[in-house]
Amino acid sequence: MSSPVQLIPNNSLITNSPEEGRQLAVKMARLIIKATQPDASVREKLRTIYAEDAAMLIAIGQVVATEFATIAAANNYWK
Amino acid sequence: MSSPVQLIPNNSLITNSPEEGRQLAVKMARLIIKATQPDASVREKLRTIYAEDAAMLIAIGQVVATEFATIAAANNYWK
Amino acid sequence: MSSPVQLIPNNSLITNSPEEGRQLAVKMARLIIKATQPDASVREKLRTIYAEDAAMLIAIGQVVATEFATIAAANNYWK
Amino acid sequence: MSSPVQLIPNNSLITNSPEEGRQLAVKMARLIIKATQPDASVREKLRTIYAEDAAMLIAIGQVVATEFATIAAANNYWK
Amino acid sequence: MSSPVQLIPNNSLITNSPEEGRQLAVKMARLIIKATQPDASVREKLRTIYAEDAAMLIAIGQVVATEFATIAAANNYWK
Amino acid sequence: MSSPVQLIPNNSLITNSPEEGRQLAVKMARLIIKATQPDASVREKLRTIYAEDAAMLIAIGQVVATEFATIAAANNYWK
Repeated sequence: MSSPVQLIPNNSLITNSPEEGRQLAVKMARLIIKATQPDASVREKLRTIYAEDAAMLIAIGQVVATEFATIAAANNYWK
Repeated sequence: MSSPVQLIPNNSLITNSPEEGRQLAVKMARLIIKATQPDASVREKLRTIYAEDAAMLIAIGQVVATEFATIAAANNYWK
Repeated sequence: MSSPVQLIPNNSLITNSPEEGRQLAVKMARLIIKATQPDASVREKLRTIYAEDAAMLIAIGQVVATEFATIAAANNYWK
Repeated sequence: MSSPVQLIPNNSLITNSPEEGRQLAVKMARLIIKATQPDASVREKLRTIYAEDAAMLIAIGQVVATEFATIAAANNYWK
Repeated sequence: MSSPVQLIPNNSLITNSPEEGRQLAVKMARLIIKATQPDASVREKLRTIYAEDAAMLIAIGQVVATEFATIAAANNYWK
Repeated sequence: MSSPVQLIPNNSLITNSPEEGRQLAVKMARLIIKATQPDASVREKLRTIYAEDAAMLIAIGQVVATEFATIAAANNYWK
C-alpha cells in the first residue's frame, strides 16, 4: 500500500458523464492495486488469475461499485 | 479491468421506475465483469460456476445491492 | 444475472412500516438470486447448503442490510 | 430467507440512545439469520462454529456495522 | 451475538476529534466480537490467529472503515 | 485491535485535493492493520503474502474505497 503512483487521474472526481465516472471508478480501483503491488510483471500474472476466477471478478465488481458511489455523489449524479 | 466496453447503458443513471433501476444495477454489475474479462467464452464458463455456487450468488447480490443504492439515490428513490 | 424475473415487488421501495421494508429487503435480495439462477430445483439445492453454513448466513445478512439501507432512506426512515 | 419471523422488534428504527441502537443492530442482524434458518437447533450448532471462528466473527461485525449505519441515520445520530 | 456487554463506550457517537472517532470505531468493532464471543480466553486465542492472517487483518480494516463512516457522519466530519 | 498508534495523520479528514484524500484513505487503512498487528516484522511478512495474492489485493481496494467515501464526503468532494 505504498503510494508514489498517482491515485486519481487528473486529481478530480468530476466527470462529464456517468460513463466517464464509471471509467474513473475502474481506474481508481486499479490504481490502488498498482500502488500496493508496484511490480508490473506480478500484476500481469495476477490478472491472469482473477480474470478467470468468478469469485474474484465479483469482488472486483464490489470495489468498483463502492468507488462509483462516491464519484456519483461527487457529481450530484450528473443531474 | 480494461474498458472498451460501454459500462453504463444509455450513459445515464436515471430510470422510469425502481424496477428499471434494479435492472440497470444488474447490467452495470455485469458490465464490469465483461470489461474485466472480455472473452465471452470464458465468461460463459464462469457463469456455469457462479450460478451453481451459493456463496457466489450471495456475493452477486451484494454487488447489485451496492449498485442499486447509487441508482436509487440518483433517482431520488423515484418519489 | 439475466432478468425476466420481476426484481422489485409492486415496483416500489415505499412501504408502510420498517417491518415491511425489511421484508422487501429480503425479497429483493432473493429475487437477484432468482434472476441469476432461474432454475428452481438448483436454487432449492443451494438453499439447503447456505441455510446450514454459518458464513453464508452471515453473508446473506450483509446483503439484506445493504438493501435495507436503501429502502430505509427511500422511506425517510418511516419518520 | 423466508420471513414469518418478526424482523424488526417494535417495528421501529427509533431508539432512545446509541447503545440501544447498537443493540437493535445486533438483533436485526440475528433475525435475518433466524428467518433464513428457522430451525433453532441448527442455529445453535452454527453458533458454536461462528463464535470460535475469527473470520466469521469479523464478518458478523461487518453486518452489524452496516445495520447500525442505517439505524444511526434514522435517529439523526441521537443529536 | 448476545449483548450484556456495553456496546458503545459512553453511549455516544460524538467525539472531540477524528482521532478519537477512529479509536471509537475500533472499540465498537471489538465490542461486537466481545458480545458474540463473551469468553475472553477464546477471544485471546482468536486474536493470535487474526493478527497473523493478512486476509483477516484486511477484513478488520473493512469493519473499522464502516463503523468510522457512521461516526464521522455523526460528528459532521468534525468541521 | 489495540491503539497506541496514531490512527489519523494530522488528526484531520480535510485534505487539499482528491489525490491527497486518496493517500489519506490508504494511510488510514494501513494504520488499522498496524494497530491490530503492532509487530513490524510480522507485518512485513504479511505484506509479501497479500501483495502477491489477487483476492487480498482486491480486498484492500475495498477497504480503501470505503475509507475514501468518508474522506470525500468530509471534504464535500473538493467542490
